[in-house]
Amino acid sequence: MYKAKAYSAASATAPLASTVIQRREPTERDIQIEILYCGICHSDLHTVRDEWNSVMPTIYPCVPGHEIVGRVTKVGSAVTKFKPGDLAGVGCLVDSDHTCPSCKADLEQFCGNATFTYNSPDKHLGGVTYGGYSDSIVVDEHFVLHVPANLNLAGVAPLLCAGITTYSPIHRWGDIKGKKVGVVGLGGLGHMGVKFAKAFGAHVVVFTTSTGKNEDALRLGADEVIISTDAEQMKQHAGTFNFILDTVAADHDLNAYINMLGLEGNITLVGAPDKPLALSSFALLFGRRSVSGSLIGGLAETQEMLDFCGKHNITSDVEIIPIQRVNEAYERLVKSDVKYRFSIDMASLKSE
Amino acid sequence: MYKAKAYSAASATAPLASTVIQRREPTERDIQIEILYCGICHSDLHTVRDEWNSVMPTIYPCVPGHEIVGRVTKVGSAVTKFKPGDLAGVGCLVDSDHTCPSCKADLEQFCGNATFTYNSPDKHLGGVTYGGYSDSIVVDEHFVLHVPANLNLAGVAPLLCAGITTYSPIHRWGDIKGKKVGVVGLGGLGHMGVKFAKAFGAHVVVFTTSTGKNEDALRLGADEVIISTDAEQMKQHAGTFNFILDTVAADHDLNAYINMLGLEGNITLVGAPDKPLALSSFALLFGRRSVSGSLIGGLAETQEMLDFCGKHNITSDVEIIPIQRVNEAYERLVKSDVKYRFSIDMASLKSE
Repeated sequence: MYKAKAYSAASATAPLASTVIQRREPTERDIQIEILYCGICHSDLHTVRDEWNSVMPTIYPCVPGHEIVGRVTKVGSAVTKFKPGDLAGVGCLVDSDHTCPSCKADLEQFCGNATFTYNSPDKHLGGVTYGGYSDSIVVDEHFVLHVPANLNLAGVAPLLCAGITTYSPIHRWGDIKGKKVGVVGLGGLGHMGVKFAKAFGAHVVVFTTSTGKNEDALRLGADEVIISTDAEQMKQHAGTFNFILDTVAADHDLNAYINMLGLEGNITLVGAPDKPLALSSFALLFGRRSVSGSLIGGLAETQEMLDFCGKHNITSDVEIIPIQRVNEAYERLVKSDVKYRFSIDMASLKSE
Repeated sequence: MYKAKAYSAASATAPLASTVIQRREPTERDIQIEILYCGICHSDLHTVRDEWNSVMPTIYPCVPGHEIVGRVTKVGSAVTKFKPGDLAGVGCLVDSDHTCPSCKADLEQFCGNATFTYNSPDKHLGGVTYGGYSDSIVVDEHFVLHVPANLNLAGVAPLLCAGITTYSPIHRWGDIKGKKVGVVGLGGLGHMGVKFAKAFGAHVVVFTTSTGKNEDALRLGADEVIISTDAEQMKQHAGTFNFILDTVAADHDLNAYINMLGLEGNITLVGAPDKPLALSSFALLFGRRSVSGSLIGGLAETQEMLDFCGKHNITSDVEIIPIQRVNEAYERLVKSDVKYRFSIDMASLKSE
């Protein structure tokens, strides 16, 4: 074992603070990574504050962070995919059983024995796994991703969660070239949805409740913006969408968006409102539309997404902060006051 | 024009009673059919009682009935598909515009200018269309279906609505041979769902709240029956279904059934509860499952369904009644007191 610098929360109400944690020495299949940037995902905040207690109680101290990008510092003897000096990314998963039907289908995110990057039982050291708000991490090579060299690393970090969460459903839906695709909500997830839908050649329409996001939506690649509270605008576009990505994690009128879909259109939810949404079966029956859910992606698909980003020069729009401002960033995140993702510059941890 | 015997309702609170209506003489593209049997669909009752007033107000007098089977008595000069003496079926549609994208995709049920079999503007005679509770009907040949000669005609009638409503989503879902398929609710729609899923080779499981339906479900072709109010049984089957057909038109716990689905499983709604259902996005995200809706089928698919029924000897289980007992049948329908569909023997209309 070796010591690593990190930021952890001691309880649901404590701020994140500087600490030292134990990391394992790399086993033969492991890769040790010096973390350069880590994105701040809303899941980090939910976990730190134990807001998902009913489904996944938080074990403290908690070191969050699952949007990790860095440089390989050491590799185990059986590692074949990486060598020291390589860029590397780690997302939401650091282990799975490799034997279940989900793993065999390259869908490790649905493995019943998956180990998440933080707050998951740590098979090596006991306790729970510690995430990316740290200067170093050790991960099985199957769960480490290659990062294209041409991309800005601060903007790459959020691709590991926000990126794959939005890329996967858009890509799986099929060929959207020239088709009308909607993105509901323009935050960390939504702004990535716009970039991917645009890169796949869709006519991209952003639905937002906020008139102030118009210009930014167009800059990000949207072709049109609809103010979802404007009944007249909504009516004009009813029945015309092929696919809609719904990134909203608060309660909202799902049926209004279902009614935007054309024949056999689909709306995929990637946000997780804590209360059920009201679903009109009439809205689904007419046009035989569908509502789906999607959750990050498997490792193969995550690599495919990163390669796609390298090719199309796609990164997240980030505000880079030193780790000392992480608590302030959480407060701003609650208010959606960020365009569009915080990325922690881990060099700031050296001074702790 | 000529006179036809029929049963009509004079108002939302009046019983159905004997009447005489006008039918058009067949035009060159029309087929005149002597109606032998007409199924009683729950939509008939909703329309007669003006229960769908908010979306489609009922115009009186109303002659319901869209599960029609009979024999061709006359054909127009341009008719090529039928000749007098042929068996013929008519479902929920009698016209559409033939030019919109839905019509061009053989999905006439989604044509914005579709004419329904009853309570729809009648382009020929003005007023509204009159349905199958009658001894005769005249329909454009595009909307008339061939009926396999080997099937019991009383049991064929409900195929024109209940049959296609359940066949279409099951068939479109893909190859279910050997897969675990659920049917929620064992009524007019559900019992057809069981027959079709079985015919396609699935392992069929019926979900029901009623312990009394066990034996009948197995007789209809189910391999297992789950009492949906039994939490232990539900837990045992969680995450194991490939596809579920949900035929329930009352409020029910949709999320409980979504949780029965395995990876990328789908539940398709064919019932239309009048209030929205509660939808948990968590249930959709984990396993990236989907909820769809489906509404009858186009003419080509309806013919395909009838041909499939002929080949597999599938009909609806019906209780045959004379038209004089139609009001009593409506009362029993409200109480789900029918196994599993009423079929009106239209010979009974001759004595009126």
